[in-house]
Amino acid sequence: MNITLTLRILGALLLFLAIALLIPLPFSWLYGDGAASAFIISALISAFCGGLLFCLFRSETDLSVREGFAVVTFGWTFFALFGALPFVFSGAVPSYINAFFETMSGFTTTGSTILTDIEALPPSLLLWRSLTQWLGGMGIIVLSLAILPMLGVGGMQLFKAEVPGPTADRLKPRIQDTAKLLWGVYVLLTGAEVVLLMAGDMSFFDSINHAFATMATGGFSTRNASVAAYNSAYIDWVITFFMFLAGVNFSLHYLALRGKIGDFIRNEEFLFYTGLTLVGTILIVLLNMGSVYPNFLDNLRFSAFQVVSIMTTTGFGTADYELWPVLCQYLLIFSMFIGGCAGSTGGGMKVARILLLFKHAQVQVFRLIHPRAVRLVKLGDRPVDKEVMQSILGFFALYMGVFVTASFIMAGIGMDLPSAGASVIATLSNIGPGLGSVGPVDNFAHVPAVGKLVLSFCMLLGRLELFTVLVLVFPSFWRK
Amino acid sequence: MNITLTLRILGALLLFLAIALLIPLPFSWLYGDGAASAFIISALISAFCGGLLFCLFRSETDLSVREGFAVVTFGWTFFALFGALPFVFSGAVPSYINAFFETMSGFTTTGSTILTDIEALPPSLLLWRSLTQWLGGMGIIVLSLAILPMLGVGGMQLFKAEVPGPTADRLKPRIQDTAKLLWGVYVLLTGAEVVLLMAGDMSFFDSINHAFATMATGGFSTRNASVAAYNSAYIDWVITFFMFLAGVNFSLHYLALRGKIGDFIRNEEFLFYTGLTLVGTILIVLLNMGSVYPNFLDNLRFSAFQVVSIMTTTGFGTADYELWPVLCQYLLIFSMFIGGCAGSTGGGMKVARILLLFKHAQVQVFRLIHPRAVRLVKLGDRPVDKEVMQSILGFFALYMGVFVTASFIMAGIGMDLPSAGASVIATLSNIGPGLGSVGPVDNFAHVPAVGKLVLSFCMLLGRLELFTVLVLVFPSFWRK
Repeated sequence: MNITLTLRILGALLLFLAIALLIPLPFSWLYGDGAASAFIISALISAFCGGLLFCLFRSETDLSVREGFAVVTFGWTFFALFGALPFVFSGAVPSYINAFFETMSGFTTTGSTILTDIEALPPSLLLWRSLTQWLGGMGIIVLSLAILPMLGVGGMQLFKAEVPGPTADRLKPRIQDTAKLLWGVYVLLTGAEVVLLMAGDMSFFDSINHAFATMATGGFSTRNASVAAYNSAYIDWVITFFMFLAGVNFSLHYLALRGKIGDFIRNEEFLFYTGLTLVGTILIVLLNMGSVYPNFLDNLRFSAFQVVSIMTTTGFGTADYELWPVLCQYLLIFSMFIGGCAGSTGGGMKVARILLLFKHAQVQVFRLIHPRAVRLVKLGDRPVDKEVMQSILGFFALYMGVFVTASFIMAGIGMDLPSAGASVIATLSNIGPGLGSVGPVDNFAHVPAVGKLVLSFCMLLGRLELFTVLVLVFPSFWRK
Repeated sequence: MNITLTLRILGALLLFLAIALLIPLPFSWLYGDGAASAFIISALISAFCGGLLFCLFRSETDLSVREGFAVVTFGWTFFALFGALPFVFSGAVPSYINAFFETMSGFTTTGSTILTDIEALPPSLLLWRSLTQWLGGMGIIVLSLAILPMLGVGGMQLFKAEVPGPTADRLKPRIQDTAKLLWGVYVLLTGAEVVLLMAGDMSFFDSINHAFATMATGGFSTRNASVAAYNSAYIDWVITFFMFLAGVNFSLHYLALRGKIGDFIRNEEFLFYTGLTLVGTILIVLLNMGSVYPNFLDNLRFSAFQVVSIMTTTGFGTADYELWPVLCQYLLIFSMFIGGCAGSTGGGMKVARILLLFKHAQVQVFRLIHPRAVRLVKLGDRPVDKEVMQSILGFFALYMGVFVTASFIMAGIGMDLPSAGASVIATLSNIGPGLGSVGPVDNFAHVPAVGKLVLSFCMLLGRLELFTVLVLVFPSFWRK
């Protein structure tokens, strides 16, 4: 483990954060919201600390796998630690723990909030909130499609072959090229959503914010009532559509933009993801029929929005699903574990893993009947490597282990059982709102400080596919 | 698939059931409870159907793997179908669905009951209830230690080497010899518990019944208040001790009786099982301290009893744990998924699988740091075959899949969410009581008929390690 190199890269990341912290400034001046100085001070502190790390630590060696893990985990943590500063300096969120929770929720594209009155925030801080999600989403796309496969994490090797860009073995050039291509797609889709939202009479400011939060599957809104505040079927459907797109593997979007639509619609994970979304929507429409929504189109609009919002782990709300029939809530809870496609900005266990788990189980049963038959688990046309299945097994076990342990702690600090479980899955799967006392019309303000730290850690664990963070606890990781 | 041979063996099993149905007769005459004719008619029907199948279908071929699956699954189902008759004929349980549920709960050693007043039952029927559990336990020991490993099911190949008896490759002699040795141990332990319970002033009749239900980790009691009715610390501790033993791999008991105590206490699954029991007990004692039980010894007695009763999936009760702090319930819920050791009469996912899952996850993380290092998952000194890990992955996925699907159906027929989930895990893990409306002081009488069938199927699935039942749904299973 080359600590010098790691610190140098973390320094560079902080310098980048300092620049990002300047983006809300024009908005602050435009709206005269008085938060400009908070951003300037925060940027200076980040730049100073980043510059110090970058200049003090020099290293001639190239980035290797171990430093990769440390940079990713500490990079995200540093972003949350320093990105929280403007909330505190502006006085909008006086408690640093709360600000840290909010910023971690942003950079991990979770969307859980401790704000009780979102609309009271200065506009520049609202933009900063959405921006943390959008930048987090950018990070995730590159992480899941370029960095993690190279680190060998979490079955994502599976998608190595699908990633566009050069196939050089060295870490840096490949990451940079992949990043450029995929970020292009990301920016393009965000821009398209901004235009479509503005066409629905949403203000430019709100449109950027919601587009940022949609494409990152983050779910931060500028309104207390979330997307429900606009009360517009058109806006609901635009956001539903873009949430759905954000839950798709971004390398598929890239292929589609290059005209390879066939690759898109034949992709097995995408088909399964679409199937799950459709089945979920149909079931919830049926359950909500009559009693909850007498009008079919309203029913379809609210049900589809909520299914896509939870499945993709965005977490926007247009309805209080805790008032829906209990079976709807049940379906939504299980969607929380599934999440989006691998290589999307969505969280959760990922559609591909769930799909492979069930294919694997089916093959296991088949092999009992035909012990000498060779039948491999396939995804699309390609057989899935046994190592990948082993890795998925490990992931599944760890996900459940973290869920059980963290909900135990949350219940231990006084939350009721359903809320404890829901708060953990909402953060571990990077969704945002959960159920019970952290439901869609509640927030996380009332959670004790220890709980906020535990949940922040869950966001980080879930977002970085568990393994990336957990390798750091092995003492042998730190040895030369 | 040789259907002729399968039906012949099922006929033989029904003939055996007919004999078993005569065992309660002496008790019926002794107590003059008027249920004798119900047993005689039931035995005659079983004998007639069994004899018919046995004589009509003749086959020269030997038992192969496929018939093994069919015999096990349909054997258990036939036992529940025919074993339910005395309940109906005696008028004690007029509804056949209820009687079927109760008998399936018996033969699968689950312990869920539809009886609202257990003590109103004629003594011979009480004995029959306990006997179904005891016979079910006998079946399970042989199934898990001799039959399933040979069918290649569910990672139990792992324990092949630990099973005493000859290692011939043909199915029949090996099963018979293993059965004799292990049943000897089972009978011996049951006898010891009867003696110890009688020494605590429990009547002979109650002692047999409770010993039957303990060694099978079944949990049927002859009293409405379960073991709490005796209000005796001595009896509680005796039953705690024997429940704990029943949750241990019976081949270990066999080794211990042959003087190989070392093998017993060095067995890694046993050590992990003991550790889990101790940690669970300590945590619950701490949580219950002061508020629930002011007296430490009472606290220890009730907490240990409940932890062991749930961990081993017995389901006896001495306390209403729904009145305990919410964290205790949380711990108990997760114990429900774990269950007893492989090769015990306990249900659940089995301690060995959980242990291997976490070892596997650890190795997965380790391999990210040391990609070129070879580190195998081991149990004891032996490395675990990759096939076994694959099989555990399949099992884990199926267990969760069945849990999710079945709880969805239970919620769909009108149960509240926690009770729906609890009723499924209580039956799938073969525990007995759950939480909510099927909690430790409630019963399953109020569950709609469809729900009783779904839960009966869960008991069967859980008890037969999922795979054994699920192979039957493949069309290719039935082809010649």
